[in-house]
Amino acid sequence: MEYKLVIVVRDDLTLSKGKLAAQVAHASVECAIKAKDRIPDVFKGWYREGQKKVVLKVKNVKELFLLKEKAESIGFVTALITDAGLTEVPPGTITCLGIGPDKEEFLDKITSSLPLL
Amino acid sequence: MEYKLVIVVRDDLTLSKGKLAAQVAHASVECAIKAKDRIPDVFKGWYREGQKKVVLKVKNVKELFLLKEKAESIGFVTALITDAGLTEVPPGTITCLGIGPDKEEFLDKITSSLPLL
Repeated sequence: MEYKLVIVVRDDLTLSKGKLAAQVAHASVECAIKAKDRIPDVFKGWYREGQKKVVLKVKNVKELFLLKEKAESIGFVTALITDAGLTEVPPGTITCLGIGPDKEEFLDKITSSLPLL
Repeated sequence: MEYKLVIVVRDDLTLSKGKLAAQVAHASVECAIKAKDRIPDVFKGWYREGQKKVVLKVKNVKELFLLKEKAESIGFVTALITDAGLTEVPPGTITCLGIGPDKEEFLDKITSSLPLL
């Protein structure tokens, strides 16, 4: 595989598995749609390979923002997801960050130290 | 909200929360990309509203296939997800089904009886 999409989740929230899955899916769709528009060749390569996704975690929202800044300074597509918070978390809670899709070797430069969720 | 995407997960598999989130995200991206191509107005409406997603469950793969047939006979976009199975499940295991995005009232006709994951 040449490409992947990384989704980084806050590990300090208590989300049900269904809610968590929906948040990761929000980030994935937003990243995919942005990439299809901005970097169509990368999007196509990633989608054809089977749209590889890796779900990682950070300790808190501060780490998530630091990672977002790093990702954007490199030029990666990002999607920061805020939950409407009608059920499990307060409204406007930031839950996760999508980075990519892009080449694995580039993404690993800023995400390889993060543990799997 | 007028539109939603439904993702239906098999409840008879034991998946980690990260693996489950990735499967739901695969279904969501495939449904979104298909809908953007086939029913662009519906896609736009759904995406602008904040891409509402609901994660539901069925007991087993048989129920998932019955639901898929029903969804396709009505003409909904669907995406059946098969896991590569390198880690938690045997290769080729069917994990979940995306249906939509489409109008909530139409999707409810075939999914309103299913429990939330």
